[in-house]
Amino acid sequence: MIATEYISIESRGFRDVLDLTPEIRRALENHDVSNGIVTVFAPGSTAGITTVEFETGLKKDLDVYLEKLFPYGDPYAHHETWHDDNGSSHLQAALIGPSVTIPVVDGELTLGTWQQVVLVDCDTRSRSRKIIIQMLHE
Amino acid sequence: MIATEYISIESRGFRDVLDLTPEIRRALENHDVSNGIVTVFAPGSTAGITTVEFETGLKKDLDVYLEKLFPYGDPYAHHETWHDDNGSSHLQAALIGPSVTIPVVDGELTLGTWQQVVLVDCDTRSRSRKIIIQMLHE
Amino acid sequence: MIATEYISIESRGFRDVLDLTPEIRRALENHDVSNGIVTVFAPGSTAGITTVEFETGLKKDLDVYLEKLFPYGDPYAHHETWHDDNGSSHLQAALIGPSVTIPVVDGELTLGTWQQVVLVDCDTRSRSRKIIIQMLHE
Repeated sequence: MIATEYISIESRGFRDVLDLTPEIRRALENHDVSNGIVTVFAPGSTAGITTVEFETGLKKDLDVYLEKLFPYGDPYAHHETWHDDNGSSHLQAALIGPSVTIPVVDGELTLGTWQQVVLVDCDTRSRSRKIIIQMLHE
Repeated sequence: MIATEYISIESRGFRDVLDLTPEIRRALENHDVSNGIVTVFAPGSTAGITTVEFETGLKKDLDVYLEKLFPYGDPYAHHETWHDDNGSSHLQAALIGPSVTIPVVDGELTLGTWQQVVLVDCDTRSRSRKIIIQMLHE
Repeated sequence: MIATEYISIESRGFRDVLDLTPEIRRALENHDVSNGIVTVFAPGSTAGITTVEFETGLKKDLDVYLEKLFPYGDPYAHHETWHDDNGSSHLQAALIGPSVTIPVVDGELTLGTWQQVVLVDCDTRSRSRKIIIQMLHE
């Protein structure tokens, strides 16, 4: 069986880290998912999905280190294409990746205790995002 | 239902970025996939799959920044194993990851407007790649 | 059909790279998986799953370069939250990502010849890990 749900979420960009786990759990309950996989996917090329311990310190660390790897102010070739300022955002998002697939066993996400599914919005402005949750289950 | 298709593609290596999206769309049409997931997988350990806005500037930026993170000329321990020159390629590919899983809803890939599925071939020579597209659907 | 298996594995942390491929193959055989996908997922936020050529040189290179990107001794904000020392581990794991999804065709993982599925344990101590293998198949 296949079921799809959506999360609408507001982000501030600049490596804003947002916890999607409660909404994913709600989607699993809505569809009585007992065993199967859930794929969480971010449409758009300036945000990524990964898992992390969702706490204030690590949110700041993710911000600082992604900026260090791909600094905002560098002269990206992407900026010449669109006279844009978000070349760094694209590279950060491409490396994080747009989706995570998580097994569900006996109705539970198989996450660790200190592990949350997060959106990392790397764009250089506020964005309204619509995240896709797709469940394949028995 | 499960269906598998393949993309045969020639790459030049050195972070050659190739758009797989049209072939993935064709595979979905061939199998009348309406709802489900598609997994795109690159066999081999010197190429990765991710999503990015497929345009000339970002292709160059990906090349430059992956090379900056894992420079070609560094003395990788991998080179001592095989007297090879592609230690950087392996690290770049391992970080990008070998696959992406994308939800399909009402026959459409749920990609953003400026988001394409790409192969990033990090090897240090031309390669013929065979990419796997697997669809699980209703 | 959906089947779930687990791998219990001991790691030493500090980018210990462990080959999960034989256990994944065993799980596919146990359940007579012919066509479908297998998702390999690491619960916990200080370890990642990716693919790499599993050989001594690259294991060392992964260690050295992940440490270079996110050095152990940096003053991570995460350390202020828990008076912990593994901020670097969390960032390394978040970038590698917690899971890989691999197509299975005619009973075979579609990996390349020199490509293995690995756990990269980035924590700063020994850990007992329980990895999840979930198969969706015909």
